[in-house]
Amino acid sequence: MKKLVPLALAACAATLALPAAAQFAKPEDAVKYRKAALTLLGNHFGHLGAMASGRAPFDAKTAAADADVIALVSKLPWTAFGPGTDKGETRARPEIWKEQAKFNDAAEKMQAEVTKLAAAAKTGNLDNLKAAFGPTARTCKACHDDFRED
Amino acid sequence: MKKLVPLALAACAATLALPAAAQFAKPEDAVKYRKAALTLLGNHFGHLGAMASGRAPFDAKTAAADADVIALVSKLPWTAFGPGTDKGETRARPEIWKEQAKFNDAAEKMQAEVTKLAAAAKTGNLDNLKAAFGPTARTCKACHDDFRED
Repeated sequence: MKKLVPLALAACAATLALPAAAQFAKPEDAVKYRKAALTLLGNHFGHLGAMASGRAPFDAKTAAADADVIALVSKLPWTAFGPGTDKGETRARPEIWKEQAKFNDAAEKMQAEVTKLAAAAKTGNLDNLKAAFGPTARTCKACHDDFRED
Repeated sequence: MKKLVPLALAACAATLALPAAAQFAKPEDAVKYRKAALTLLGNHFGHLGAMASGRAPFDAKTAAADADVIALVSKLPWTAFGPGTDKGETRARPEIWKEQAKFNDAAEKMQAEVTKLAAAAKTGNLDNLKAAFGPTARTCKACHDDFRED
């Protein structure tokens, strides 16, 4: 079986040849990674929004599953905005790197609200979800307005 | 503030206009979603692989963080292989839909091994991580060999 492992490694992950301390071998890997995280975040946040607004029936189990995803995934994109990742297939605006303190602050505000939203979604109470959804959505919008191309 | 919420909703999630029971408004949304999940999975699996193989120094905290991601994200892609999602920007092979029982079995085997790998990675013991990594990598490779275009 020994021979199988290196093949399997190559099959499973493009990032295996990383230098020890780097999360991304190439800037485009970082761009792809942060877009992936934000895609999952948007999808599960969207489910919660549909339930919060009444466009989808409230289902406590689904809401709790969405909460698990957003709580974890909202923490992931930020390491992927490193130097050199302002190019390529990205809508990230140069302001991210020019106004890093402001960007980090926006990212932290979003994560704080997402943490609250996830906790609310896990209570199994629709009113809690409704109350937490708007403030979280506003932190998404604020960051997109300032730091993402339309 | 009432006016802000719909705008913020639109900014945060493309999936808000979903029919009640569907997770994806369009097949291409499903393709994008499953690719996003597999991108995150590959990245964090890759970190664990680098540590398991000695290409990166073992760091218990990083390994535990990677474990959290893979344990959750390995569960996500599967709902996104529904009817009509065999087209577009995807390397998914037609066999996924022709041999669904085999595909589901491969997906379940991977999730079972990932669960074990995540538990091993969280023990803080490199030998545990090494022991669990190979079997998981082989489940990735088996599924890619049968169901993914090169």
